[in-house]
Amino acid sequence: RAPVGMQQRIAESPEHDATIERLPVAHLAEVFRAYRDRIVDLAKDPRLEYVMVFKNHGDMAGASLEHTHSQLVATPVVPLMVEEELAGALQHLRIKKRCIWCDIIRQERQGGGRIILDRDGFVALAPFAPRFPFETWILPAVHRPRYEETPAAHFAGLAGVVRHVLGRISESLEDPPYNFMLHSAPLRASTLDHFHWHLEIIPKLTRVAGFEWGTGFFINPTPPEEAVKYLRGEVSDRP
Amino acid sequence: RAPVGMQQRIAESPEHDATIERLPVAHLAEVFRAYRDRIVDLAKDPRLEYVMVFKNHGDMAGASLEHTHSQLVATPVVPLMVEEELAGALQHLRIKKRCIWCDIIRQERQGGGRIILDRDGFVALAPFAPRFPFETWILPAVHRPRYEETPAAHFAGLAGVVRHVLGRISESLEDPPYNFMLHSAPLRASTLDHFHWHLEIIPKLTRVAGFEWGTGFFINPTPPEEAVKYLRGEVSDRP
Repeated sequence: RAPVGMQQRIAESPEHDATIERLPVAHLAEVFRAYRDRIVDLAKDPRLEYVMVFKNHGDMAGASLEHTHSQLVATPVVPLMVEEELAGALQHLRIKKRCIWCDIIRQERQGGGRIILDRDGFVALAPFAPRFPFETWILPAVHRPRYEETPAAHFAGLAGVVRHVLGRISESLEDPPYNFMLHSAPLRASTLDHFHWHLEIIPKLTRVAGFEWGTGFFINPTPPEEAVKYLRGEVSDRP
Repeated sequence: RAPVGMQQRIAESPEHDATIERLPVAHLAEVFRAYRDRIVDLAKDPRLEYVMVFKNHGDMAGASLEHTHSQLVATPVVPLMVEEELAGALQHLRIKKRCIWCDIIRQERQGGGRIILDRDGFVALAPFAPRFPFETWILPAVHRPRYEETPAAHFAGLAGVVRHVLGRISESLEDPPYNFMLHSAPLRASTLDHFHWHLEIIPKLTRVAGFEWGTGFFINPTPPEEAVKYLRGEVSDRP
């Protein structure tokens, strides 16, 4: 297979120092629609297996340009992280006959205590075992493997939830650097009962050091149940 | 299994701002002997499965104390990264009937162009596909799975090679922050034909951002063949 790939940048606003959480919802919905349109377009190239959309906000999170933007990298292989997620999710499907992300949403709605926002068809929650303090996942409430199959009418709901969560992160933690990464099903995946697209947001509040690089384990001093209190606005002071 | 563990810090010198590359070789050899002694001691506790020794140098690399020190974390499970290395190495053993690290050393000695130093029983090399610019591995030249079985007479050789490499990293790159991690075989591993202990040194010159966190792939702008020229002292200017 030829080592082809593609990189694109998506300027979220003509305004140089705009931030996502301050864009109007309708504008942000257009950004999320642009992600979809780019993926749909790139999927036409049969050499590409995956499109990873991500954003680096702030110097410490690796932002390489100042003008606010998201990035997209299309690869001729399915990324390692996505492969690992798929393998774990498939194991869950085999045992439980259900999508693991659907199960997480159901369990958290029954009182897991880690839901930040559950509105307009999208759920924002802190995962049970976050790698990073204030790590947040945003998922469609119903099973949907491919981001690019999100109906046009849903982008406003997604934009509202992302905007609210990033706004709370910015307010509670003094505009921290963060990354977000969109995990969607591989372009050529055939069976998709076990994958559920999701956006992972990771504020950069801790340093990844020798322990993490050596073990693959992460030290996180903030329990998710504690983090969600700030992100829900129940505690107004900074942690 | 009970969730037990242990953390210890090893002050490498009574001098507050000592750095490893400026310690006398005999002194640094004692530091490496202390790593061995700590591992041998912790291995007596049957609840522990692994001892990870690592060092964070510099604020950006996550050093949490100023006084120069290494750290050790003993865990009741084999770390994910080590499990993954073991799985890959086992696959190589099954196909080639040889240790993958022995094969790497042999291949690099035959002209791979990525050896930095090969002296006193230890080899320092840039891996074929480094995750980070100037990533360097130091290994015993002969097959040795367990760090803690290093004969006492070998620590001076190890100290000399580590000191030289860290000295070159510091000189060529203006004392960059770095992490090093010691990967030794799991304490309770029975078959060890496929594991070869090694020290991984990763200078922190790039930011790990959304692409890396989302994909598990790493963008490294410096080819290892380029990095070794600086670390060998063949090029004296900074890259």
